Amino acid sequence: MEKSKQPFCWVLLAFFILSCLVARTHGRMKEQGLHHFYKSTLKPDSGIDSSLFQATDDLVDQTNILPQEGLKEGDWIKALPGQPPVKFSQYGGYVTVNKAAGRALYYYFVEAEQPSKETLPLLLWLNGGPGCSSLAYGAMQELGPFRVKSDGKTLFKNKYSWNYAANVLFLESPAGVGFSYSNTTSDYSKMGDKITAADNYMFLVNWQERFPEYKNRPFYISGESYAGHYVPQLAHTILYHNEKANRTIINLKGIIIGNAVINDETDTRGMYDYFATHALIPDRVVSQIQKYCDFSPNASNQSPVCIAALEAVFPNIGNINIYNIYAPLCFSTNITSHPKKASILNFDPCSNYYVYAYLNRPDVQEAMHANVTKLTHDWEPCSDVLTTWLDSSSTIIPLLQEFMANGIRVWVFSGDIDGRVPVTSTKYSLNKMHLHVKTTWHPWFLKGEVGGYTEVYKGDLTFATVRDAGHQVPSFQPTRGLSLIKHFLGGTPLPNTKRSN
Amino acid sequence: MEKSKQPFCWVLLAFFILSCLVARTHGRMKEQGLHHFYKSTLKPDSGIDSSLFQATDDLVDQTNILPQEGLKEGDWIKALPGQPPVKFSQYGGYVTVNKAAGRALYYYFVEAEQPSKETLPLLLWLNGGPGCSSLAYGAMQELGPFRVKSDGKTLFKNKYSWNYAANVLFLESPAGVGFSYSNTTSDYSKMGDKITAADNYMFLVNWQERFPEYKNRPFYISGESYAGHYVPQLAHTILYHNEKANRTIINLKGIIIGNAVINDETDTRGMYDYFATHALIPDRVVSQIQKYCDFSPNASNQSPVCIAALEAVFPNIGNINIYNIYAPLCFSTNITSHPKKASILNFDPCSNYYVYAYLNRPDVQEAMHANVTKLTHDWEPCSDVLTTWLDSSSTIIPLLQEFMANGIRVWVFSGDIDGRVPVTSTKYSLNKMHLHVKTTWHPWFLKGEVGGYTEVYKGDLTFATVRDAGHQVPSFQPTRGLSLIKHFLGGTPLPNTKRSN
Repeated sequence: MEKSKQPFCWVLLAFFILSCLVARTHGRMKEQGLHHFYKSTLKPDSGIDSSLFQATDDLVDQTNILPQEGLKEGDWIKALPGQPPVKFSQYGGYVTVNKAAGRALYYYFVEAEQPSKETLPLLLWLNGGPGCSSLAYGAMQELGPFRVKSDGKTLFKNKYSWNYAANVLFLESPAGVGFSYSNTTSDYSKMGDKITAADNYMFLVNWQERFPEYKNRPFYISGESYAGHYVPQLAHTILYHNEKANRTIINLKGIIIGNAVINDETDTRGMYDYFATHALIPDRVVSQIQKYCDFSPNASNQSPVCIAALEAVFPNIGNINIYNIYAPLCFSTNITSHPKKASILNFDPCSNYYVYAYLNRPDVQEAMHANVTKLTHDWEPCSDVLTTWLDSSSTIIPLLQEFMANGIRVWVFSGDIDGRVPVTSTKYSLNKMHLHVKTTWHPWFLKGEVGGYTEVYKGDLTFATVRDAGHQVPSFQPTRGLSLIKHFLGGTPLPNTKRSN
Repeated sequence: MEKSKQPFCWVLLAFFILSCLVARTHGRMKEQGLHHFYKSTLKPDSGIDSSLFQATDDLVDQTNILPQEGLKEGDWIKALPGQPPVKFSQYGGYVTVNKAAGRALYYYFVEAEQPSKETLPLLLWLNGGPGCSSLAYGAMQELGPFRVKSDGKTLFKNKYSWNYAANVLFLESPAGVGFSYSNTTSDYSKMGDKITAADNYMFLVNWQERFPEYKNRPFYISGESYAGHYVPQLAHTILYHNEKANRTIINLKGIIIGNAVINDETDTRGMYDYFATHALIPDRVVSQIQKYCDFSPNASNQSPVCIAALEAVFPNIGNINIYNIYAPLCFSTNITSHPKKASILNFDPCSNYYVYAYLNRPDVQEAMHANVTKLTHDWEPCSDVLTTWLDSSSTIIPLLQEFMANGIRVWVFSGDIDGRVPVTSTKYSLNKMHLHVKTTWHPWFLKGEVGGYTEVYKGDLTFATVRDAGHQVPSFQPTRGLSLIKHFLGGTPLPNTKRSN
């Protein structure tokens, strides 16, 4: 991996050490589940670069819009192995995003039940990393219609699946993630935000050709963690090409990002503050970090005092699940011969292992029309193929401002017990936007309980926390997650009294 | 209730409003379960008053040491109604602490199993309030050997009961709390820290006479919340009388207090900071509080800006359980005709109602030798009889310092998801002691997981958090609570590696 003197190099070092700690503690699979999220800070070429926000120009004109007739039918999934009966359709398959290179992205599409599928919007979900799979997390452990049981071969129903609110499209992106691939393997060392946005856009344009009935459907983009970069950059690309073509190629209405990487400096400061205020590390360590570390985009080096303080953090957080600081750990990574009793309301910390087993089964891959090129590597929750990340802007705030100016709905949410991109970080990052309050901070309710807190800003930007949820909000609080997305998609404020939910 | 211009009057007002909110939301029983803890700030006569730490002088010489021969046998509880079989003895009854007034305190004593009861220490547990019952919380919902099922008449075993670590004595204190009473009802309007310490001391001296086999047993005092006042003040009284008598009347070895009221100013500041850092209230509200409110013992008034900021807090926290900010609420306050499936590891938020039903049953009271004078009021988890609290020092730090200087073991713990006396408050209060670190901050482990974090100070004072525990630590984290008390009683450091627990 190319290493150059770059901003954040010391922070990167810190997170490498952390990743090692986590790996040692939880074994290989856990490492994959966690450490790739940490890649959100692995940005050898980061720093403010406004050109990053310039959408790739020649996408729609080039040869990558391909005929899609008849392909939809071939993508129809009769049933996933081990699934319970359901009343909606599923599709899975590949969309070529760059014919010359042979880059194709795998998608899994879950329609809402009939007749709602005709009236509900289209929602894209993206996981982050960079390098993590929307099948692994979004579809199979968060908001998809099924979860995998502990036997790694049977599925159970998620009655809080987001396909009660939308037709949901899960995309493994960029190439090199999950089942998505490039026949030009050198592509794997050339990935970054820009190519991801371009490929995701080409995916959407082609997918719409394959599913023309969704062409004018209100479209929303959702995602978490490093998808805080993917989602706005894709949205920006959509807006750019709509404007350039002077027509609505994709009918984008809004974006929603959760526990999202938004603004590196405040995200990082917020993370250490969260550790201290949640009694994970001593206040004196965070005081030193805040005093001696420079997390600004212009920083090129860190003082020894800063490095010592950062190093003092790791032993304290290396043995908890930083994505849900109160969650139990997974102690039995083997799948079971018989499925354990499972419940949507009690997230199983070993789920990642069940999903890994399930998605590597040949019958599952066949049913999903996945791995058609016989990849030389296993399907992984987070990619081992991608080793570099070439471009990553230090902030996506200008994009959020662009959407607000263009009437695109913007929601930012945060599971409040995530330590990786915690609510403190999101609050600090939003503060940077100097927003004006429209609807002041208040609890929002679901079934008589506080689901979280929310504040709406003039613009319109809605911020909402989800109480007692970790990084992967729908994993830990499926009912609250579904309520949140329903209000987002419906354009309705989160309820400020117990009676109206 | 006498009202005078006193420090904290505005804070008191604030908490009154909060109590009303809580009461409106959760009904009467919930009010009792919560609002009396709030009495920890109901201190009409508070402010620094060093005379509060002067132990009542003439206790042991007066007529309140009464003959106890033969009373122990009468206190033996054959079995509690609805209990499963156990291998230890239980006792319950009254100890007169003031013969002239007719003040008697109810105790419930749970011995460790044979033969451990001979070798394990004696541990007193006190709940706070002021006005809350150690039977209600400590014995029946936290660390006692049984929990009450949802039918309000059967019990199930707590396999993490602290009587695996000690012979445990639960005391309802002062008179007016639970089954404890005074025949001079005017006593109920004269209670405060000082009389509580004196009565608790007289209880202990007489109880030792009744149970002489415990006379030289190593003795420890534990408690939570406002027992942060009771425990040190009782310990101080013990030390005082030992010294005065020049002999060990009570063999005090250590104290341990959890989520404890320690130092009003820092406790209060820490609470608001906790609310903000846990995304319950906006940062701008806490900024105003920290800027415009004066929580020092000398403050006599608060500015309108401060009051407005305090008022902005309540709507945000009135609908969550402030004693465990992530806990579900109790929605069905009725006891069930058949017991629901119950588990020690999943605390039932409606437990307070089951305990209320159980302890008001005539057969239970008879078996426990309780309510022998036929009180004119129900047994309540927190007293409705006590309406004033005459004295409450603004800090107990000098007492902690006294114990450290006298070789008394001092442990301070904190369940880290309590919002009432949160970990932030305890950290701020300990900072006031200007301690020097002996063993630096590190996670402590139980069964491979982080049980919490700990730091030991020269002196010796141990601070420990309990991860994912609310105000009532053994309710929410019974395994971690038991491990903590075992290490405290054993005088062994909390383990800093996974392997040693």
